[in-house]
Amino acid sequence: MTLVPKKAAESDQLKLVSREAKHEDTVIDLGDGVTIGGEKIAIMAGPCAIESKEQMETIAQELKKAGVQIMRGGAFKARTNPYAFQGLGEEGLKILSQTAKSYGFKTVTEILDIRDLETVHKHSDIFQIGTRNMQNFSLLKEVGKTQKPVLLKRGMSSTINEFLLAAEHIMKNGNPNVILCERGIRTFETDTRYTLALATVPLIKELSHLPIIVDPSHATGKRSLIAPMSKASIAAGADGILIDVHPNPAEALCDGEQAIQTETFHKLMEELKPLAQVLGRLL
Amino acid sequence: MTLVPKKAAESDQLKLVSREAKHEDTVIDLGDGVTIGGEKIAIMAGPCAIESKEQMETIAQELKKAGVQIMRGGAFKARTNPYAFQGLGEEGLKILSQTAKSYGFKTVTEILDIRDLETVHKHSDIFQIGTRNMQNFSLLKEVGKTQKPVLLKRGMSSTINEFLLAAEHIMKNGNPNVILCERGIRTFETDTRYTLALATVPLIKELSHLPIIVDPSHATGKRSLIAPMSKASIAAGADGILIDVHPNPAEALCDGEQAIQTETFHKLMEELKPLAQVLGRLL
Amino acid sequence: MTLVPKKAAESDQLKLVSREAKHEDTVIDLGDGVTIGGEKIAIMAGPCAIESKEQMETIAQELKKAGVQIMRGGAFKARTNPYAFQGLGEEGLKILSQTAKSYGFKTVTEILDIRDLETVHKHSDIFQIGTRNMQNFSLLKEVGKTQKPVLLKRGMSSTINEFLLAAEHIMKNGNPNVILCERGIRTFETDTRYTLALATVPLIKELSHLPIIVDPSHATGKRSLIAPMSKASIAAGADGILIDVHPNPAEALCDGEQAIQTETFHKLMEELKPLAQVLGRLL
Amino acid sequence: MTLVPKKAAESDQLKLVSREAKHEDTVIDLGDGVTIGGEKIAIMAGPCAIESKEQMETIAQELKKAGVQIMRGGAFKARTNPYAFQGLGEEGLKILSQTAKSYGFKTVTEILDIRDLETVHKHSDIFQIGTRNMQNFSLLKEVGKTQKPVLLKRGMSSTINEFLLAAEHIMKNGNPNVILCERGIRTFETDTRYTLALATVPLIKELSHLPIIVDPSHATGKRSLIAPMSKASIAAGADGILIDVHPNPAEALCDGEQAIQTETFHKLMEELKPLAQVLGRLL
Repeated sequence: MTLVPKKAAESDQLKLVSREAKHEDTVIDLGDGVTIGGEKIAIMAGPCAIESKEQMETIAQELKKAGVQIMRGGAFKARTNPYAFQGLGEEGLKILSQTAKSYGFKTVTEILDIRDLETVHKHSDIFQIGTRNMQNFSLLKEVGKTQKPVLLKRGMSSTINEFLLAAEHIMKNGNPNVILCERGIRTFETDTRYTLALATVPLIKELSHLPIIVDPSHATGKRSLIAPMSKASIAAGADGILIDVHPNPAEALCDGEQAIQTETFHKLMEELKPLAQVLGRLL
Repeated sequence: MTLVPKKAAESDQLKLVSREAKHEDTVIDLGDGVTIGGEKIAIMAGPCAIESKEQMETIAQELKKAGVQIMRGGAFKARTNPYAFQGLGEEGLKILSQTAKSYGFKTVTEILDIRDLETVHKHSDIFQIGTRNMQNFSLLKEVGKTQKPVLLKRGMSSTINEFLLAAEHIMKNGNPNVILCERGIRTFETDTRYTLALATVPLIKELSHLPIIVDPSHATGKRSLIAPMSKASIAAGADGILIDVHPNPAEALCDGEQAIQTETFHKLMEELKPLAQVLGRLL
Repeated sequence: MTLVPKKAAESDQLKLVSREAKHEDTVIDLGDGVTIGGEKIAIMAGPCAIESKEQMETIAQELKKAGVQIMRGGAFKARTNPYAFQGLGEEGLKILSQTAKSYGFKTVTEILDIRDLETVHKHSDIFQIGTRNMQNFSLLKEVGKTQKPVLLKRGMSSTINEFLLAAEHIMKNGNPNVILCERGIRTFETDTRYTLALATVPLIKELSHLPIIVDPSHATGKRSLIAPMSKASIAAGADGILIDVHPNPAEALCDGEQAIQTETFHKLMEELKPLAQVLGRLL
Repeated sequence: MTLVPKKAAESDQLKLVSREAKHEDTVIDLGDGVTIGGEKIAIMAGPCAIESKEQMETIAQELKKAGVQIMRGGAFKARTNPYAFQGLGEEGLKILSQTAKSYGFKTVTEILDIRDLETVHKHSDIFQIGTRNMQNFSLLKEVGKTQKPVLLKRGMSSTINEFLLAAEHIMKNGNPNVILCERGIRTFETDTRYTLALATVPLIKELSHLPIIVDPSHATGKRSLIAPMSKASIAAGADGILIDVHPNPAEALCDGEQAIQTETFHKLMEELKPLAQVLGRLL
């Protein structure tokens, strides 16, 4: 009567990402003591889109004060609207890597197109695969042939099994450095941009050895929900958060309504520290 | 082009439940110093279904040790399958109220049928309205005519606006004592029973003065996810949790796979205390 | 790994509604040659809400001309907004039954509250159970104790299995006269009010012997989509359609945007006739 | 209170695909009298995956008898499971184009990777963009720079607005030859593979001048539902159907459970003809 996928069979397909395949938690090492997946919670922060050298400098100073180790920023933007700002491209990548070098950050940025692989590889410490590309199997294959860590965002309508199989596509090609990211799923709910399915975090921890972080900015799409959902993510066991920070969200060229200001970010970081400690984590 | 409800207009319908209507948080007073919605986090625990006097005694002893103040237990069960156990009915209610009296608990139990109003009123301190009855407007109206606190569970496919309007149906009839409960929504995800939409908690806190609690048992349907999602709920700002506890989940007559054992419950309670404290709450 | 309901087991619960339980299609006989589930396609039409004797007279004349045999109209309205028009109640039922008697229609109207059972029983030929009450098991039980046909609308987030189990609740109590109604499910789509899941029709035909009709008005919530989706419903094998018709939709007290005008209705009926014929049905 | 996208503003982004931009229906001309979007309903049939020259010959003979003008077949397969059959690649494309040439078919096949653009361009009359690539903006841009017709499948969790904006991405780059395809959306329903949202067809017809077809095979994932949903699609106003046909579905290398056998296909084609006629279409 039913067409529900035979999960047991599908689990057999998780030859590399499953907890059975590898019992210990995978810890991704970015060098210089920066890791994802261990005791320390990884904070990745920065603007949705890289807009200018000045913007990145301003944000970098604040992130540095807050103790952030990984800076995010988009140079190639996947935009539903073909007439919206598409990102600064390679120019943006250069700004990101130069800023990061000055301040000692590791970096993460999205790759949209296979043809940009070398360029993004050169300028970023982590490849980000966005939600719309979670099943872009050609792209998964190519990043899978490198050894650079891949931040794989969950497809907005992917099951957990499909999410893990996308990671399997990367690992199968030789790259064991996959970081999973829950970023909200599409539901009937319209009061938030997506629905943050936070139970994904402990469930993935059962099923896989890979680290998992949360993106509360895209998941909620609403500035006021980012701080409480960052706390909830860490309480649920997430290995890190990916967060939109902008000096002036009202003037952001992309997704300003889901970015928090630098002051709010500092306050959040202060609140997360004792929370992490009580949960046996560091921040 | 679109049929999205005009939210601004609908907000006008929230004459009583909205934050604009009443700025201060509503604190529900159950008597004997037991409250919901204030500094103290409310833990409501017990079995999905009341099975026997002995079962309730066994659980009550453990809940007492753990410092629980409110005992839950179902006497009338809404079962999808007409051939499944339907609950002990009034006999179950008597067991609940007697056990609660012996141990000094307040009680919460579901009312399914208007014709049971007086009976449930007599035996329970809180009326629970289940997810399938969130828009049973006749039932909302009748509990709205009493002054007994109502625990209103979110409909499994209700928007937040519809959820608040259901509370408005109760308040409009004269009962201001409404406790909202996020219990998971129905999505495409099949690896958890429902999807716990935890961002509902801070969003409701913005929109309404009513207390909101979370039911991680029904939301996830999976024992191993209950502890992490309880922590996450409190970190997100919930005023309490409603949790299935059973001395022997494997033999539970209803929803055993989402109940935690008493030892696990004790451990969870110990972990929640420092977490609550760091968040400025008590437990 | 998974919590997907064990469908095979659940099928065992469909002791009465399944195709295995009864091979031949059930045909509901309303008397005077009016049937649902046989060769003839049943058209149930009328306003969402009964507003006045005059309104019902106006519509009845048009329905009569169009060859309609079953008139619909709501007297008790389930309204999300507590401040919206709640229906005329028993007064509305009287208008419905008197109008129907004058014109020789059979009638269908919604029952919301068990306490109205006798009143609705007296005035209507079919009990309608609305989408919000599909799992109001007390109500299902009570209509199940009568022999009056029950039009059971699918819950807006019910699986097909849950839908059939709700019918089983009715049949188990002794009433074999159940008519299923697909009325749209809740999805992420916002450009229609609900998503009309039309594949439900042939799938139900495989799984059950009960007749199934479609409500394109509520499913789409958009006047211009009603005619094409009525045609599609019949092409998919539906045994009838339930349709909102109003002489002046712009002034309707309830859901006017999903009602079609009487002229449009006449045109649709003319178009459906040859379509039904080519599909081996009558209209 | 709400984050629902401002639809009015978004409509302004549909500069080329909207009905306002071009009033008359777009008719795609594939040459040799084969068109999509006019009076004649387009049937695109063939196997999910091209498996061998013999398989394609066998199917081609049957399609020819049935009067089909457009043959489908996949050479590059997007597979969730990295260990499943990935398609024959360029070898498959050659089989497709040679078979089509022998029998006088036009062809449609999926392009997954920008780097295959020239190869697919050479062997196929239509580029198919699959559901997982609907927002692969790099790919949309590249096919948009050609003049070859593009069959754009709806993303499995895309709104209608996002679907039309994806078409706008193609048209904005200079290619006006876009064919939209409804192929089912992801919902909570598990008894069908996806939910065929058929009201999309008349809604798209209102909003856009582009032709729209339906894929009942992927939408339902269930062989027995394909014939009724094909009829329903045409009754709803679709300009064509895309259908999996396989001589021996039980042995198909890909998605066999949603393919119909050639005899069933012949029967369906015979049933569709009078249906099309009664709806004022040709087949």
